Amino acid sequence: MPEDGAKAEVVDVRWHEPAVSRSDREQAAGHRGCVLWFTGLSGCGKSTLANAVDRRLHARGVRSFVLDGDNVRHGLNAAPALLEERYGKEAADRFGLGFGAADRAENIRRIGAVADLFAQAGIVTLTAFISPYRRDRDAVRAMLAPGDFVEVFVQAPLEVCEGRDPKGLYKKARAGEIKNFTGIDDPYEEPRAPEIVVDSTAKPPDELATDVIAWLERAGKIPAA
Amino acid sequence: MPEDGAKAEVVDVRWHEPAVSRSDREQAAGHRGCVLWFTGLSGCGKSTLANAVDRRLHARGVRSFVLDGDNVRHGLNAAPALLEERYGKEAADRFGLGFGAADRAENIRRIGAVADLFAQAGIVTLTAFISPYRRDRDAVRAMLAPGDFVEVFVQAPLEVCEGRDPKGLYKKARAGEIKNFTGIDDPYEEPRAPEIVVDSTAKPPDELATDVIAWLERAGKIPAA
Repeated sequence: MPEDGAKAEVVDVRWHEPAVSRSDREQAAGHRGCVLWFTGLSGCGKSTLANAVDRRLHARGVRSFVLDGDNVRHGLNAAPALLEERYGKEAADRFGLGFGAADRAENIRRIGAVADLFAQAGIVTLTAFISPYRRDRDAVRAMLAPGDFVEVFVQAPLEVCEGRDPKGLYKKARAGEIKNFTGIDDPYEEPRAPEIVVDSTAKPPDELATDVIAWLERAGKIPAA
Repeated sequence: MPEDGAKAEVVDVRWHEPAVSRSDREQAAGHRGCVLWFTGLSGCGKSTLANAVDRRLHARGVRSFVLDGDNVRHGLNAAPALLEERYGKEAADRFGLGFGAADRAENIRRIGAVADLFAQAGIVTLTAFISPYRRDRDAVRAMLAPGDFVEVFVQAPLEVCEGRDPKGLYKKARAGEIKNFTGIDDPYEEPRAPEIVVDSTAKPPDELATDVIAWLERAGKIPAA
């Protein structure tokens, strides 16, 4: 606060009007923000389905965004080697994320926190990560506002996922070249009460996307088409 | 890939159509995504100005969002104590962020990575953090796509900021209750070539916001009103 003549001319920057609220942003968007959390084994079709839903939402004018390995592991949750290259060894040792249980938990925690910010911005946020541990997913659910976390379990038997093996990761895991690989030498804990379950061996992605969109309409997250 | 009759009936989930691109999202929004990175001393008016610009953008139908201490320090960049409460001591020790130089760098790096995601979503993203070190801000600039990082230096003399002291932090820093406080016992490195400089002692926040909006129009980030 100004206490003398000279300082009294300085403009007071403290703010008294309200900031734009989540509700304001959702009203502008014409729908609710939320997080569609796709979980399932590598190769189950999470990313494919999330992108199919995203395309549909985009075509309907819904504000949506996909968080997945492609845009998270090169930035927010960079691996130690990438961090070391950009920020040096101390940063890599302290903040780089590997594949142990604590690192996986922190990986999922950060993604959950970012998804939360996107939901607050009024965006239908789609995340596509294996997220194999129930407690890590439940911690994200608990962090978000009630109703914001929509768990989508993308079901497919391990044999099917391993048969697809789009990135050759199962082959490497079986050969011992990758450790702690979900489904091979690390567990996948199925959701106990997911909001949505899809069987990715039963229908093509576009039909599964239709089911997810229908759920969003029924739940009042987006208006009916 | 299916190799026998039984597996051949399984639907192939691999994706061949393109995902929604950044350009698709920007076209739907009617403007470009970018990051307005407000930097300056505590009490200089960063957050006030960022929120004033956000309100103007929202009123014009521009998709915008503010990242600041209020929504980042309770989630993405939680302090050790908060992490310990939710995830235990190992998580707090390994992943909690304090106020040393390496921790500040990681704090700014993560915020930059999240702002990058918001910009990719076609959103005019406003960040309001002291971000006192030039190398940390420059690292964010380098991480983002060319033209996405718009550095906004919010100028105000230390005496003015300390006089305002809206949260009583300068008082605590002078009393030694807070260590490494920017401007008191930790340096603030002014931007060398910021895209925008505003003097928060010269005009009220609403007039400063007008100047920032005018810059966004001139730069082609948003259409003229």
